[in-house]
Amino acid sequence: MEVIIDPKSGFCFGVNKAIGLAEEELSRKGSLFCLGDIVHNEQEVERLANLGLKVISRDDFFTLQNCTVLLRAHGEPPEVFKYAQKNKINLIDGTCPVVTKLQQKVKLSHDLLPKEGTLVIFGKPNHPEVVGLNGQIDYKAHVVQNKEDLLSIDYSKPLVLYSQTTMSREKYWELKMEIEERIHSPELLDAYDTICGQVANRAPWLKKFSKGVDILVFVGGRKSSNSQVLFAHCKAANANSFFITNPDETEKISFENINRIGVCGATSTPRWLLEQVANAIKNRANG
Amino acid sequence: MEVIIDPKSGFCFGVNKAIGLAEEELSRKGSLFCLGDIVHNEQEVERLANLGLKVISRDDFFTLQNCTVLLRAHGEPPEVFKYAQKNKINLIDGTCPVVTKLQQKVKLSHDLLPKEGTLVIFGKPNHPEVVGLNGQIDYKAHVVQNKEDLLSIDYSKPLVLYSQTTMSREKYWELKMEIEERIHSPELLDAYDTICGQVANRAPWLKKFSKGVDILVFVGGRKSSNSQVLFAHCKAANANSFFITNPDETEKISFENINRIGVCGATSTPRWLLEQVANAIKNRANG
Repeated sequence: MEVIIDPKSGFCFGVNKAIGLAEEELSRKGSLFCLGDIVHNEQEVERLANLGLKVISRDDFFTLQNCTVLLRAHGEPPEVFKYAQKNKINLIDGTCPVVTKLQQKVKLSHDLLPKEGTLVIFGKPNHPEVVGLNGQIDYKAHVVQNKEDLLSIDYSKPLVLYSQTTMSREKYWELKMEIEERIHSPELLDAYDTICGQVANRAPWLKKFSKGVDILVFVGGRKSSNSQVLFAHCKAANANSFFITNPDETEKISFENINRIGVCGATSTPRWLLEQVANAIKNRANG
Repeated sequence: MEVIIDPKSGFCFGVNKAIGLAEEELSRKGSLFCLGDIVHNEQEVERLANLGLKVISRDDFFTLQNCTVLLRAHGEPPEVFKYAQKNKINLIDGTCPVVTKLQQKVKLSHDLLPKEGTLVIFGKPNHPEVVGLNGQIDYKAHVVQNKEDLLSIDYSKPLVLYSQTTMSREKYWELKMEIEERIHSPELLDAYDTICGQVANRAPWLKKFSKGVDILVFVGGRKSSNSQVLFAHCKAANANSFFITNPDETEKISFENINRIGVCGATSTPRWLLEQVANAIKNRANG
């Protein structure tokens, strides 16, 4: 019996980088503030809390002075950096480099855009990444999630379209086509598919991975919509797919007469949890 | 009986603009050189030839002096402009504004890219638009058409991806995903989907249009691959779809007991030809 952990499962590049920065600081100081949840996974948040990471809200942040605060991968608007400088807060910037680059592009595009033009961001209006992007341009972006949100735009004027890095590419495409239908002349539109492949490509990759194993064990959160969507893709590609949230639940799966077992997870599933699951399966086979 | 010409069929914005410039100059001077075919449609090229447009090759161009030359929508590399200036050639620049903007972006990206990085253009290597784009950066781009062309790239270094405006978006996506799989870190990749919606959206739009009519008459070129592809979409959406190349061929179609007839064409089908076809159908109904 062979247990294969999907090499591409686990947190994305940006989240791993932010967690690495947190661990490094915690190993030296034993405690650290983090502005918002570092990742939407309770088990990982708990692990880091045990190491001394203290999650603070934005309201908390704007009362602090003389301390160190980690900024997570999503990025932050300029007022956070300004407040930190004024109030001697040492920032450890965990912003994902892909997001940093996107923030710079949004700012540059806005600077170059005629006053009457519109900068559109395809994203969730209150998502921290969108707040960080929109903050670059004094919150002047028109944030859209669906076709209805496109109605109030002036299509006779220049329009720039960006996307939050973690949105669906299919939806981005639909919206871009809708804008192309409406805009008075194609030269007025500058559209940038700024969706990060680490997230967007997970579904097609998991389909491939699922097909190559006899049983697929998917590790995710019951409340995570990303987990549900990705698991549906696995299940469609391989009917022998099972959804679990922790290593104990491997007990409900029968691995008799099975050669290759695949273990994978959502974009919010930590790699160490996948390893624990793989070990639990191996122990059962040997026990 | 109602005959509806697809409002979105006919040449794209850029080609129409170039043809307009040609017609304007021809109406004043009676003759004009054009560097390369203005559009891949024999009937339109013949119509403009009758007005005095003379198509010249690139070799021809570099022998000319003291004359006026039209540059078509695809755009040209800098050496064309330099030669024209030195040899007192008056250029009428019909470059599509969407292509001009893309040329500027490619140049800027290349200027900002570290020496060891790669600028990749998804396009046909000898397509005039690609020559124009690549010429902006001394032909240093790596032009790719398929996955095999991606093998020789160094994925440990920064990479910028652009697309010729008339490529397939599905293929762009596939290649982008392939690059994302290979690249050592997502922050190394800057990918721009610069495919023009006027071309890319034609297929989904024609599907909609075809469904809304009782008979669909598609006007295209027998040798045009774009025509074949678009007609296949129409036929799939409406089994009552017919392919013709000129108004006379409407005679082979029966319009008995038909209410709504749709007339549409490929991206290389001139609008006046669609109008001739629509009139031929109406005349038959009345005759």
